[in-house]
Amino acid sequence: MPDPYGLRVADNRAAIDEAAALDAACLALVVGALPGVSPGGSPRPGFSPDLAEARIRVAEALALLAPYAADRGVRLALEPLHPMYCADRAVLSTLGQALDLAERYPAEQVGVVVDSFHVWWDPEVPTQIARAAGRIASYQVSDFLVPLPADTLLGRGMMGDGVIDFGPLTSAVDATGYRGDIEVEIFNADIWAADPDEVLATMKRRFAAAVW
Amino acid sequence: MPDPYGLRVADNRAAIDEAAALDAACLALVVGALPGVSPGGSPRPGFSPDLAEARIRVAEALALLAPYAADRGVRLALEPLHPMYCADRAVLSTLGQALDLAERYPAEQVGVVVDSFHVWWDPEVPTQIARAAGRIASYQVSDFLVPLPADTLLGRGMMGDGVIDFGPLTSAVDATGYRGDIEVEIFNADIWAADPDEVLATMKRRFAAAVW
Repeated sequence: MPDPYGLRVADNRAAIDEAAALDAACLALVVGALPGVSPGGSPRPGFSPDLAEARIRVAEALALLAPYAADRGVRLALEPLHPMYCADRAVLSTLGQALDLAERYPAEQVGVVVDSFHVWWDPEVPTQIARAAGRIASYQVSDFLVPLPADTLLGRGMMGDGVIDFGPLTSAVDATGYRGDIEVEIFNADIWAADPDEVLATMKRRFAAAVW
Repeated sequence: MPDPYGLRVADNRAAIDEAAALDAACLALVVGALPGVSPGGSPRPGFSPDLAEARIRVAEALALLAPYAADRGVRLALEPLHPMYCADRAVLSTLGQALDLAERYPAEQVGVVVDSFHVWWDPEVPTQIARAAGRIASYQVSDFLVPLPADTLLGRGMMGDGVIDFGPLTSAVDATGYRGDIEVEIFNADIWAADPDEVLATMKRRFAAAVW
């Protein structure tokens, strides 16, 4: 279909079709970036710094995608990213903001992802996790390292190596009735390069000690 | 006085005394960090990841400091920092959170600092700046660079080199009736090392083009 608004509707519909073919539990949407800014890249000349406009585009794209996904039995899941990624990766920066959009649709059609790395700092997060009851499509964990590694994308930590207090987050997610997986998702080049058996053993130990 | 709670009350009262002696317009408070985490440093063994507790300590410390400052004619100003600094520099991460604390005191006793670098990403910021009417003790500007420099403390940008849309921020601050200074505050080692006359000339040009 034509895509006069630059919302990449065709790309996203193709992703929904793939999710349907795979019978995936949900399709996580990391949405936005300012127009003219690529993930991890410098703003291109003439890029738009209009954050309010970029956020409206997310709402518009969701309006086009949610019915398409619902028709195919695919649940969309909006994932807010840490505010340090607001310009180049996702203009959805808080769980509250994601829920403002998700709540315009039935919970089984549009959910949210709760990722400890992205939301741990947010003073509203206990309230917003409670508000997300029935909409949590995934609960993901990794740790926030201090000092922040130079590679802010691949600098996430193994649970217990950073500063996140997982207990209150896990309890809040559990209290909503969420019974899905707790996904360990650690973007970290050193961990990816390490011996998989050791990583798994450490992960299991840390998960039991810190997360659940 | 004894400081059984580790709130550094004596240090802060000394700073208030200094501000009074200087007849300073306000004393900006960058508050918190998790107990056992130093700015830019790794968490020490036994550090506390309890963010809710750390935030309660800020409220308690403010309860001890605000009357002391008021008696000396010093206005305190709570400054929320970008969430990427939540663990090691300031557990106040949003303007809304700062206002929740500030509003417990008269506006002339406890204000807030609005710093573009720290708050530009926040979807609540237009609302919260309006809410801050009468309490804005300082409006500070610098730009948020993308990609984020490896030195996240000294990686702020000259206005126009990053992604912040200053227009809506300045308009919102102006609409509150704020008539104080707009402070250019750029933590950036390269700029500090550059020729001061050139920096000033660039700053004046960029300020006029982007900020006001």
